[in-house]
Amino acid sequence: MVQDFIQQTDDRTRQLTRDLLRQIHHAVLSVIDEAHGYPYLARIACQADEDGIPLAFLSEIAVHTRLLESQPKAALLIEAPPGRGEAMAQARLSLQVVARRLPDHGPAHAARLASWLAHNPKSRAYAELPGFHFWRLEPHAGLLNAGFGQAYRIGPGDIRTPPADHVRGR
Amino acid sequence: MVQDFIQQTDDRTRQLTRDLLRQIHHAVLSVIDEAHGYPYLARIACQADEDGIPLAFLSEIAVHTRLLESQPKAALLIEAPPGRGEAMAQARLSLQVVARRLPDHGPAHAARLASWLAHNPKSRAYAELPGFHFWRLEPHAGLLNAGFGQAYRIGPGDIRTPPADHVRGR
Repeated sequence: MVQDFIQQTDDRTRQLTRDLLRQIHHAVLSVIDEAHGYPYLARIACQADEDGIPLAFLSEIAVHTRLLESQPKAALLIEAPPGRGEAMAQARLSLQVVARRLPDHGPAHAARLASWLAHNPKSRAYAELPGFHFWRLEPHAGLLNAGFGQAYRIGPGDIRTPPADHVRGR
Repeated sequence: MVQDFIQQTDDRTRQLTRDLLRQIHHAVLSVIDEAHGYPYLARIACQADEDGIPLAFLSEIAVHTRLLESQPKAALLIEAPPGRGEAMAQARLSLQVVARRLPDHGPAHAARLASWLAHNPKSRAYAELPGFHFWRLEPHAGLLNAGFGQAYRIGPGDIRTPPADHVRGR
């Protein structure tokens, strides 16, 4: 990323980043459509995993999932839920990520699914359909926009938290 | 784009597409960060131009604008304003576009700026800052998601409208 005019990341912006991630139910995913040379965009179901890293829950027949399977370098836009203010003035986090599909069995999968459903009970509608899988979206680089003209560079170390700090119901 | 499971576009979905575009103040833009091999995401100020084509108003110092200058093949996600429902259940339009910066002078620019401000009076806060320019985002291909499992392929002809149909204040 071009990195001019970007301010120094501090504890406040690191906390804002983690808070943003902790409350999301969905995010915007961008994948590269290599056959046509364009990016491709979709809104996806997304939450923070146990250690704060973004976790997606994707249908294997979706266009974006198929593109992700051939090119795992992707991007994610995470925004605060709509409030009273203008979306352009609200905090948002733009991440470049590497996507990795997780196994669909074992105690780690069961714990992840239970945590996902606890954080968003309405997700049961799709979570139990066949062909949905968890994907970890490991951050490579990021930019936090905390309002007009306030940009901060965010790295993987600003996002990952020890599981003990994790506040979601388990 | 992969095109399985996609339904036939009809007048209703074409109208939904145009209605979505007519009411937006902003959208999510994805550009390709060729130096690192990732897409890059940002929320941008966006409205429909006189003929229905998406029009962005971008700062020349923003990361996404610099990336767009070197690679004009981009993508745009256009969503209905947040309502009572879940964002995942609301209609959204995913477009692959080619971006082109417009000249900053002449009667066409003045008309575009007047129309932009009439549609979103709050945009005056940034519209009169130096270094902001209009960009046309010409659709190449698109997918309308009209709710869970309802996907329709959208082409440029489904978006472009004669200026006479244009309902924005001018």
